[in-house]
Amino acid sequence: MPARDRAVVLVSGGMDSCVTAAIAARDHDVAFVHAGYGQRTERKERACFTALADHFGVERRLLIRLDHLREIGGSSLTDPALAVPHGGPGPGIPSTYVPFRNAQLLSAAVSWAEALGARGVFIGAVEEDSSGYPDCRRAFFDAFEAMIDQGTRPETRVRVVTPVIQMTKSSIVALGLELGVPFHLTWSCYQDEERACGTCDSCVLRRRAFSQAGVPDPLPYR
Amino acid sequence: MPARDRAVVLVSGGMDSCVTAAIAARDHDVAFVHAGYGQRTERKERACFTALADHFGVERRLLIRLDHLREIGGSSLTDPALAVPHGGPGPGIPSTYVPFRNAQLLSAAVSWAEALGARGVFIGAVEEDSSGYPDCRRAFFDAFEAMIDQGTRPETRVRVVTPVIQMTKSSIVALGLELGVPFHLTWSCYQDEERACGTCDSCVLRRRAFSQAGVPDPLPYR
Repeated sequence: MPARDRAVVLVSGGMDSCVTAAIAARDHDVAFVHAGYGQRTERKERACFTALADHFGVERRLLIRLDHLREIGGSSLTDPALAVPHGGPGPGIPSTYVPFRNAQLLSAAVSWAEALGARGVFIGAVEEDSSGYPDCRRAFFDAFEAMIDQGTRPETRVRVVTPVIQMTKSSIVALGLELGVPFHLTWSCYQDEERACGTCDSCVLRRRAFSQAGVPDPLPYR
Repeated sequence: MPARDRAVVLVSGGMDSCVTAAIAARDHDVAFVHAGYGQRTERKERACFTALADHFGVERRLLIRLDHLREIGGSSLTDPALAVPHGGPGPGIPSTYVPFRNAQLLSAAVSWAEALGARGVFIGAVEEDSSGYPDCRRAFFDAFEAMIDQGTRPETRVRVVTPVIQMTKSSIVALGLELGVPFHLTWSCYQDEERACGTCDSCVLRRRAFSQAGVPDPLPYR
C-alpha cells in the first residue's frame, strides 16, 4: 500500500473541527495542531484536543501558544472584562471575534505543513449558519491559499481544506454520527465551567444543531 | 495638530527593520512588535529591540512568542543541529529560511493593528540584494494584503508597507545615516556571540553594504 498523503488538521476541541478531523483521517496521515491563547476555556479545550488526538491515534501533535492575543485584546473571548454574548448570534460581527486569529492559526499550521511535506491544512470553519466571523468565509481561505503560494518554497503547495464550510450545524452533527465521531470528547461552550452553560451563542448553536439532527447531545448542561 | 495615523512596525533588531522603523516614525504614531522563537540570536535581538524602542520613544510594545517554530524546525536558524551558511548567499533558498515565518509575524502584527485601529504594518523586507526568501518578495505582501481584506472586519483596512523592499543594502545604510538611525543598536549576525562573526551570510551582506556606502560599521567584529 502506498504511503498516504500527510495533512495538518487544526483541532480546537469543538464539534466542527472534530468532524473535520474525522474526514481528514479517512484518507490522510494526519497531524493535529492546537492553539492556546488565554481564551476563557483554554484548559477545557486543550483536554478535548488531547482526548481527540488519543481517540484518532495521532502521534504528531503541535501545541502553539498565541498569548499575545490576550494582550492584543479586542474580543470577549480573551478579555475577561467583556461579557460573552448569549441567546444566539445577532446581526453583525459578534464580540467573540478575535482579530485575525484564524490567519495566525493557519500560518502556524502551514509552517508545519511545509516542514512535514503535507499538502493540506484542514480547518473546520463553517460559513453558513455560523457566527459571522470574516475569517471563516471561503473567500478568506481562497485569498490565504494564494498567499501561501507566494510565501513558501516554489515546490511547496499547501491547500486550505474546509470540508464542512457550506454545511449547516445540524448536517455536521449528522455526518459526525455517520463517521462515528466522539462528540462526548468535544466542548463548545464559551464559559469555563464543569457543565456547559447552554445559553451562550456557541451553546445555542450546538443545541439547536443536535435538536435539528434529532439526536441527544452527549454533553452535560447546567 | 491632528492626531497622526497609527502604524505597527515589525522590529527584529536588524538594520533593515531599524531603517524601516525610522521611516515609519517620521509620520506615524508607531507601535513596535518583536518575535522570539528560539532563534540562535534571540537574546541579542530582543536587547536590540528594547534599545531601539527606547531610542524612538515608543511606548506601545508587543513581544510575541513563536516557540513552535523551534519544534517545527526545518531551518538552520532554529535547529542547532544545522550549521548556518557562511561566505554570502548562493543560488536558491538558503537553510536559514524559516518556513512561512513572515506570514506568522505579519498575522500577529495585523491582529494588533486591527485592535489598535492602525492602518499600516511596516516590515523591513528586502527583495533585491537579499537572501532569496520567498516571503520577502513584494508579490507575497500583495497577496497578504488581499488576504487581510478578506479576513478582517469590513471597516478594517491594513496595508503592508515595505519601504526598503526595492533598495540595495548599501542604499539602506545611506538612507539610515540620513535619518540618524542608531546602527550601533542593531544586530545582524546569525551567531550568538559577544562580537559579530563577520563571515556568516548575514554579516557578509551587512559588511558589504557599509563598505559600499563608504562608512564604517559601528558593530564590533571578531
